Amino acid sequence: MINIEDFGIREGISEVIFTTLSPDGIPNAAPIGLHRKGNRLFARIYNSKTLDNIISKPMAAANIVYDPVLFVKSALSDIEAERFEFVDVFPVLKDAPGWILFNCKYKKGKNVSVVELKPINGKIAIRKLQPVNRGFNAVIEASIHATRYVVFRQQKYLERIEYYNSIVKKCGGAREKETMRLLFELIGIMK
Amino acid sequence: MINIEDFGIREGISEVIFTTLSPDGIPNAAPIGLHRKGNRLFARIYNSKTLDNIISKPMAAANIVYDPVLFVKSALSDIEAERFEFVDVFPVLKDAPGWILFNCKYKKGKNVSVVELKPINGKIAIRKLQPVNRGFNAVIEASIHATRYVVFRQQKYLERIEYYNSIVKKCGGAREKETMRLLFELIGIMK
Repeated sequence: MINIEDFGIREGISEVIFTTLSPDGIPNAAPIGLHRKGNRLFARIYNSKTLDNIISKPMAAANIVYDPVLFVKSALSDIEAERFEFVDVFPVLKDAPGWILFNCKYKKGKNVSVVELKPINGKIAIRKLQPVNRGFNAVIEASIHATRYVVFRQQKYLERIEYYNSIVKKCGGAREKETMRLLFELIGIMK
Repeated sequence: MINIEDFGIREGISEVIFTTLSPDGIPNAAPIGLHRKGNRLFARIYNSKTLDNIISKPMAAANIVYDPVLFVKSALSDIEAERFEFVDVFPVLKDAPGWILFNCKYKKGKNVSVVELKPINGKIAIRKLQPVNRGFNAVIEASIHATRYVVFRQQKYLERIEYYNSIVKKCGGAREKETMRLLFELIGIMK
Protein backbone atom coordinates (compact mmCIF):
# COMPACT_ATOMS: atom_id res chain seq x y z
CA MET A 1 0.00 0.00 0.00
CA ILE A 2 1.53 3.30 -1.16
CA ASN A 3 0.92 6.37 0.98
CA ILE A 4 1.48 9.37 -1.29
CA GLU A 5 2.08 11.59 1.78
CA ASP A 6 5.34 9.72 2.34
CA PHE A 7 6.44 10.89 -1.09
CA GLY A 8 5.70 14.52 -0.28
CA ILE A 9 2.86 14.68 -2.81
CA ARG A 10 0.70 17.52 -1.52
CA GLU A 11 -2.44 19.19 -2.76
CA GLY A 12 -1.80 21.23 -5.91
CA ILE A 13 0.71 20.27 -8.57
CA SER A 14 4.03 18.54 -7.96
CA GLU A 15 6.57 18.75 -10.78
CA VAL A 16 7.98 15.29 -11.38
CA ILE A 17 9.55 13.38 -14.25
CA PHE A 18 7.33 10.72 -15.78
CA THR A 19 8.99 7.63 -17.17
CA THR A 20 7.00 5.51 -19.60
CA LEU A 21 7.67 2.61 -21.97
CA SER A 22 7.15 2.55 -25.73
CA PRO A 23 5.65 -0.44 -27.60
CA ASP A 24 9.23 -1.21 -28.73
CA GLY A 25 10.44 -1.27 -25.13
CA ILE A 26 12.23 2.11 -25.28
CA PRO A 27 12.01 4.12 -22.03
CA ASN A 28 11.02 7.77 -22.20
CA ALA A 29 11.27 10.58 -19.63
CA ALA A 30 9.35 13.87 -19.58
CA PRO A 31 8.52 16.47 -16.91
CA ILE A 32 4.86 16.30 -15.94
CA GLY A 33 2.69 18.10 -13.37
CA LEU A 34 1.22 15.62 -10.92
CA HIS A 35 -2.13 17.03 -9.73
CA ARG A 36 -3.46 15.99 -6.35
CA LYS A 37 -7.10 16.66 -5.52
CA GLY A 38 -7.99 15.12 -2.19
CA ASN A 39 -6.57 11.62 -2.51
CA ARG A 40 -6.92 11.39 -6.28
CA LEU A 41 -4.01 11.92 -8.63
CA PHE A 42 -4.15 13.13 -12.22
CA ALA A 43 -1.92 14.37 -14.97
CA ARG A 44 -2.93 16.50 -17.94
CA ILE A 45 -0.80 15.27 -20.81
CA TYR A 46 -0.45 16.88 -24.22
CA ASN A 47 -0.14 14.77 -27.35
CA SER A 48 3.39 13.46 -26.96
CA LYS A 49 5.53 10.38 -26.70
CA THR A 50 4.48 10.15 -23.04
CA LEU A 51 0.81 10.00 -24.03
CA ASP A 52 1.43 7.50 -26.85
CA ASN A 53 3.33 5.29 -24.43
CA ILE A 54 0.58 5.45 -21.79
CA ILE A 55 -2.02 4.55 -24.41
CA SER A 56 0.03 1.55 -25.52
CA LYS A 57 0.99 0.48 -21.98
CA PRO A 58 -1.10 2.27 -19.33
CA MET A 59 1.58 2.69 -16.71
CA ALA A 60 3.82 5.56 -15.66
CA ALA A 61 6.36 6.23 -12.92
CA ALA A 62 6.55 9.66 -11.26
CA ASN A 63 10.21 10.22 -10.43
CA ILE A 64 10.87 12.78 -7.72
CA VAL A 65 14.03 14.50 -8.81
CA TYR A 66 16.18 17.43 -7.60
CA ASP A 67 18.72 17.49 -10.43
CA PRO A 68 17.99 20.51 -12.64
CA VAL A 69 19.78 18.88 -15.60
CA LEU A 70 17.23 16.04 -15.63
CA PHE A 71 14.33 18.50 -15.81
CA VAL A 72 15.86 20.45 -18.67
CA LYS A 73 17.09 17.45 -20.65
CA SER A 74 13.85 15.54 -20.36
CA ALA A 75 11.86 18.69 -21.25
CA LEU A 76 13.83 19.63 -24.35
CA SER A 77 15.55 16.48 -25.59
CA ASP A 78 16.11 12.89 -24.51
CA ILE A 79 17.96 11.73 -21.47
CA GLU A 80 20.68 9.10 -21.81
CA ALA A 81 19.68 5.40 -21.79
CA GLU A 82 22.00 4.76 -18.82
CA ARG A 83 19.96 7.13 -16.65
CA PHE A 84 17.13 4.57 -16.54
CA GLU A 85 16.87 1.38 -14.56
CA PHE A 86 14.18 -1.25 -14.86
CA VAL A 87 12.03 -2.33 -11.95
CA ASP A 88 9.89 -5.31 -12.90
CA VAL A 89 10.50 -4.48 -16.57
CA PHE A 90 9.30 -0.87 -16.16
CA PRO A 91 11.72 2.08 -16.40
CA VAL A 92 12.40 4.55 -13.58
CA LEU A 93 15.24 7.04 -13.15
CA LYS A 94 18.23 5.39 -11.51
CA ASP A 95 19.29 8.36 -9.38
CA ALA A 96 15.80 9.54 -8.36
CA PRO A 97 15.51 10.03 -4.57
CA GLY A 98 12.06 8.45 -4.94
CA TRP A 99 9.52 7.20 -7.45
CA ILE A 100 5.89 6.06 -7.52
CA LEU A 101 4.62 3.62 -10.12
CA PHE A 102 1.05 4.11 -11.34
CA ASN A 103 -1.60 2.30 -13.29
CA CYS A 104 -3.09 4.83 -15.71
CA LYS A 105 -6.64 5.36 -16.89
CA TYR A 106 -6.80 7.96 -19.63
CA LYS A 107 -9.56 10.04 -21.14
CA LYS A 108 -8.31 11.03 -24.58
CA GLY A 109 -8.77 14.67 -25.51
CA LYS A 110 -8.04 16.51 -28.73
CA ASN A 111 -4.87 18.27 -27.56
CA VAL A 112 -4.64 17.26 -23.94
CA SER A 113 -5.70 14.04 -22.24
CA VAL A 114 -6.53 13.57 -18.58
CA VAL A 115 -4.84 10.56 -17.02
CA GLU A 116 -5.92 9.27 -13.63
CA LEU A 117 -3.11 7.64 -11.69
CA LYS A 118 -3.41 4.79 -9.18
CA PRO A 119 -0.24 4.07 -7.20
CA ILE A 120 0.80 0.41 -7.32
CA ASN A 121 4.43 0.54 -6.20
CA GLY A 122 6.99 3.02 -4.93
CA LYS A 123 10.42 3.48 -3.50
CA ILE A 124 12.11 6.09 -1.38
CA ALA A 125 15.88 5.91 -1.85
CA ILE A 126 17.01 9.15 -0.25
CA ARG A 127 15.35 11.40 2.32
CA LYS A 128 17.16 14.70 2.72
CA LEU A 129 16.59 18.22 3.85
CA GLN A 130 16.12 20.41 0.77
CA PRO A 131 16.28 24.10 1.67
CA VAL A 132 14.66 26.41 -0.87
CA ASN A 133 17.06 27.35 -3.66
CA ARG A 134 15.68 30.12 -5.87
CA GLY A 135 18.24 29.26 -8.53
CA PHE A 136 17.01 25.69 -8.80
CA ASN A 137 13.39 26.88 -8.81
CA ALA A 138 14.21 29.38 -11.55
CA VAL A 139 15.62 26.59 -13.73
CA ILE A 140 12.30 24.75 -13.45
CA GLU A 141 10.38 27.86 -14.49
CA ALA A 142 12.82 28.54 -17.34
CA SER A 143 12.45 24.98 -18.61
CA ILE A 144 8.66 25.39 -18.78
CA HIS A 145 8.96 28.58 -20.81
CA ALA A 146 11.62 26.89 -22.96
CA THR A 147 9.21 24.11 -23.96
CA ARG A 148 6.79 26.83 -25.10
CA TYR A 149 9.53 28.78 -26.85
CA VAL A 150 10.62 25.82 -28.99
CA VAL A 151 7.01 25.41 -30.20
CA PHE A 152 5.93 29.03 -30.64
CA ARG A 153 9.30 30.85 -31.02
CA GLN A 154 7.80 33.93 -29.38
CA GLN A 155 9.98 36.62 -27.85
CA LYS A 156 7.90 36.75 -24.66
CA TYR A 157 9.03 33.24 -23.69
CA LEU A 158 12.64 34.16 -24.29
CA GLU A 159 12.20 37.19 -22.05
CA ARG A 160 10.86 34.98 -19.26
CA ILE A 161 13.79 32.61 -19.70
CA GLU A 162 16.22 35.54 -19.46
CA TYR A 163 14.46 36.79 -16.35
CA TYR A 164 14.80 33.38 -14.67
CA ASN A 165 18.39 33.15 -15.87
CA SER A 166 19.14 36.35 -13.94
CA ILE A 167 17.84 34.62 -10.77
CA VAL A 168 19.97 31.55 -11.53
CA LYS A 169 23.06 33.73 -11.93
CA LYS A 170 22.37 35.35 -8.57
CA CYS A 171 21.10 32.44 -6.48
CA GLY A 172 22.08 29.21 -8.24
CA GLY A 173 25.09 26.97 -7.76
CA ALA A 174 27.42 25.62 -10.46
CA ARG A 175 24.92 22.88 -11.35
CA GLU A 176 22.10 25.36 -12.01
CA LYS A 177 24.35 27.63 -14.07
CA GLU A 178 25.56 24.68 -16.15
CA THR A 179 21.92 23.65 -16.65
CA MET A 180 21.01 27.09 -18.01
CA ARG A 181 23.87 26.90 -20.51
CA LEU A 182 22.47 23.52 -21.62
CA LEU A 183 18.96 25.00 -21.84
CA PHE A 184 20.07 27.84 -24.12
CA GLU A 185 21.98 25.35 -26.26
CA LEU A 186 18.91 23.08 -26.56
CA ILE A 187 16.64 25.94 -27.64
CA GLY A 188 19.25 27.15 -30.13
CA ILE A 189 20.19 30.43 -28.45
CA MET A 190 23.85 31.40 -28.46
CA LYS A 191 25.00 32.93 -25.18
CA MET B 1 30.90 18.64 14.09
CA ILE B 2 28.19 19.92 11.74
CA ASN B 3 28.30 18.77 8.12
CA ILE B 4 26.32 21.33 6.14
CA GLU B 5 25.80 18.80 3.32
CA ASP B 6 23.51 16.87 5.67
CA PHE B 7 21.33 19.97 5.86
CA GLY B 8 21.09 20.23 2.08
CA ILE B 9 23.06 23.49 2.00
CA ARG B 10 24.48 23.54 -1.51
CA GLU B 11 26.57 26.02 -3.44
CA GLY B 12 24.63 29.17 -4.24
CA ILE B 13 21.98 30.67 -1.99
CA SER B 14 19.58 28.72 0.21
CA GLU B 15 16.52 30.60 1.44
CA VAL B 16 16.14 29.99 5.16
CA ILE B 17 14.62 31.76 8.14
CA PHE B 18 17.12 33.27 10.53
CA THR B 19 16.21 33.39 14.19
CA THR B 20 18.12 35.79 16.41
CA LEU B 21 17.85 37.15 19.93
CA SER B 22 17.46 40.79 20.96
CA PRO B 23 19.32 42.33 23.93
CA ASP B 24 16.00 42.12 25.81
CA GLY B 25 15.74 38.40 25.09
CA ILE B 26 13.03 38.73 22.43
CA PRO B 27 13.37 36.20 19.58
CA ASN B 28 13.11 37.45 15.99
CA ALA B 29 12.62 35.59 12.71
CA ALA B 30 13.40 36.84 9.19
CA PRO B 31 13.98 35.19 5.81
CA ILE B 32 17.65 35.38 4.81
CA GLY B 33 19.68 34.04 1.89
CA LEU B 34 22.39 31.71 3.13
CA HIS B 35 25.32 31.92 0.68
CA ARG B 36 27.64 28.99 0.35
CA LYS B 37 31.00 29.48 -1.39
CA GLY B 38 33.06 26.33 -1.13
CA ASN B 39 32.77 25.45 2.53
CA ARG B 40 32.28 28.99 3.76
CA LEU B 41 28.88 30.40 4.65
CA PHE B 42 27.79 34.01 4.53
CA ALA B 43 24.71 36.16 4.72
CA ARG B 44 24.29 39.67 3.38
CA ILE B 45 22.03 41.40 5.86
CA TYR B 46 20.40 44.79 5.44
CA ASN B 47 20.03 47.14 8.38
CA SER B 48 17.28 45.42 10.32
CA LYS B 49 16.31 43.86 13.61
CA THR B 50 18.21 40.75 12.50
CA LEU B 51 21.42 42.76 12.07
CA ASP B 52 20.95 44.65 15.35
CA ASN B 53 20.45 41.36 17.16
CA ILE B 54 23.55 39.79 15.59
CA ILE B 55 25.62 42.82 16.57
CA SER B 56 24.38 42.59 20.15
CA LYS B 57 24.66 38.78 20.34
CA PRO B 58 26.67 37.35 17.42
CA MET B 59 24.67 34.17 16.89
CA ALA B 60 21.96 33.13 14.45
CA ALA B 61 20.07 29.96 13.62
CA ALA B 62 19.23 29.10 10.00
CA ASN B 63 15.87 27.33 10.10
CA ILE B 64 15.11 25.15 7.09
CA VAL B 65 11.41 25.57 6.54
CA TYR B 66 8.81 24.42 3.98
CA ASP B 67 5.79 26.27 5.35
CA PRO B 68 5.01 29.20 3.02
CA VAL B 69 3.16 31.04 5.82
CA LEU B 70 6.38 31.22 7.87
CA PHE B 71 8.26 32.82 4.96
CA VAL B 72 5.58 35.43 4.33
CA LYS B 73 4.89 36.23 8.00
CA SER B 74 8.55 36.54 8.91
CA ALA B 75 9.20 38.66 5.79
CA LEU B 76 6.35 41.13 6.29
CA SER B 77 5.46 41.07 9.98
CA ASP B 78 6.29 39.12 13.12
CA ILE B 79 5.67 35.49 13.75
CA GLU B 80 3.89 34.40 16.91
CA ALA B 81 5.94 33.89 20.11
CA GLU B 82 4.70 30.30 20.38
CA ARG B 83 6.38 29.41 17.07
CA PHE B 84 9.79 29.63 18.75
CA GLU B 85 11.47 27.20 21.06
CA PHE B 86 14.69 27.74 22.96
CA VAL B 87 17.69 25.47 22.61
CA ASP B 88 20.39 26.35 25.15
CA VAL B 89 18.69 29.75 25.58
CA PHE B 90 18.78 30.52 21.83
CA PRO B 91 15.57 30.65 19.74
CA VAL B 92 14.87 28.35 16.79
CA LEU B 93 11.58 27.62 15.03
CA LYS B 94 9.71 24.82 16.77
CA ASP B 95 8.32 23.16 13.64
CA ALA B 96 11.41 23.53 11.43
CA PRO B 97 12.43 20.22 9.81
CA GLY B 98 16.00 21.29 10.56
CA TRP B 99 18.14 24.13 11.86
CA ILE B 100 21.81 25.06 12.09
CA LEU B 101 23.12 27.34 14.81
CA PHE B 102 25.99 29.67 13.87
CA ASN B 103 28.53 31.90 15.49
CA CYS B 104 28.55 35.13 13.50
CA LYS B 105 31.39 37.46 12.52
CA TYR B 106 30.09 40.61 10.89
CA LYS B 107 31.62 43.30 8.75
CA LYS B 108 29.37 46.29 9.13
CA GLY B 109 28.44 48.07 5.90
CA LYS B 110 26.44 51.24 5.31
CA ASN B 111 23.25 49.54 4.09
CA VAL B 112 24.20 45.92 4.03
CA SER B 113 26.58 43.98 6.26
CA VAL B 114 28.34 40.75 5.44
CA VAL B 115 28.09 38.14 8.16
CA GLU B 116 30.28 35.04 8.12
CA LEU B 117 28.65 32.04 9.72
CA LYS B 118 30.40 29.19 11.55
CA PRO B 119 28.16 26.23 12.39
CA ILE B 120 28.29 25.24 16.05
CA ASN B 121 25.18 23.10 16.47
CA GLY B 122 22.37 21.69 14.40
CA LYS B 123 19.38 19.39 14.37
CA ILE B 124 17.51 17.48 11.72
CA ALA B 125 13.99 16.72 12.92
CA ILE B 126 12.31 15.57 9.70
CA ARG B 127 13.77 14.19 6.48
CA LYS B 128 11.16 13.94 3.74
CA LEU B 129 10.87 13.84 -0.01
CA GLN B 130 9.91 17.31 -1.24
CA PRO B 131 8.84 17.21 -4.88
CA VAL B 132 9.03 20.55 -6.66
CA ASN B 133 5.88 22.61 -6.15
CA ARG B 134 5.78 25.67 -8.40
CA GLY B 135 3.04 27.16 -6.23
CA PHE B 136 5.22 27.02 -3.12
CA ASN B 137 8.19 28.42 -5.07
CA ALA B 138 6.02 31.24 -6.40
CA VAL B 139 5.06 32.24 -2.84
CA ILE B 140 8.77 32.59 -1.98
CA GLU B 141 9.33 34.82 -5.03
CA ALA B 142 6.20 36.85 -4.27
CA SER B 143 7.33 37.38 -0.67
CA ILE B 144 10.66 38.80 -1.89
CA HIS B 145 8.92 41.28 -4.20
CA ALA B 146 6.50 42.08 -1.38
CA THR B 147 9.34 43.16 0.92
CA ARG B 148 10.47 45.54 -1.83
CA TYR B 149 6.93 46.74 -2.48
CA VAL B 150 6.34 47.76 1.14
CA VAL B 151 9.50 49.90 1.02
CA PHE B 152 9.28 51.43 -2.47
CA ARG B 153 5.52 51.14 -3.24
CA GLN B 154 6.33 50.74 -6.94
CA GLN B 155 3.86 49.21 -9.36
CA LYS B 156 6.49 46.91 -10.90
CA TYR B 157 6.77 44.93 -7.66
CA LEU B 158 3.01 44.57 -7.50
CA GLU B 159 3.00 43.26 -11.06
CA ARG B 160 5.58 40.62 -10.15
CA ILE B 161 3.50 39.63 -7.12
CA GLU B 162 0.42 39.29 -9.34
CA TYR B 163 2.38 37.19 -11.82
CA TYR B 164 3.51 34.82 -9.07
CA ASN B 165 0.00 34.76 -7.66
CA SER B 166 -1.22 33.43 -11.01
CA ILE B 167 1.24 30.52 -10.64
CA VAL B 168 0.05 29.91 -7.07
CA LYS B 169 -3.57 29.82 -8.26
CA LYS B 170 -2.65 27.25 -10.89
CA CYS B 171 -0.09 25.08 -9.10
CA GLY B 172 -0.42 25.72 -5.37
CA GLY B 173 -2.35 23.86 -2.72
CA ALA B 174 -4.73 25.36 -0.16
CA ARG B 175 -1.80 26.39 2.08
CA GLU B 176 -0.13 28.38 -0.69
CA LYS B 177 -3.39 30.10 -1.67
CA GLU B 178 -4.09 31.01 1.96
CA THR B 179 -0.53 32.38 2.21
CA MET B 180 -1.05 34.65 -0.81
CA ARG B 181 -4.22 36.04 0.79
CA LEU B 182 -2.16 36.78 3.89
CA LEU B 183 0.58 38.38 1.78
CA PHE B 184 -1.86 40.75 0.07
CA GLU B 185 -3.35 41.63 3.46
CA LEU B 186 0.09 42.36 4.93
CA ILE B 187 1.06 44.66 2.06
CA GLY B 188 -2.32 46.44 2.27
CA ILE B 189 -3.79 45.29 -1.04
CA MET B 190 -7.47 44.40 -1.10
CA LYS B 191 -8.22 41.32 -3.20
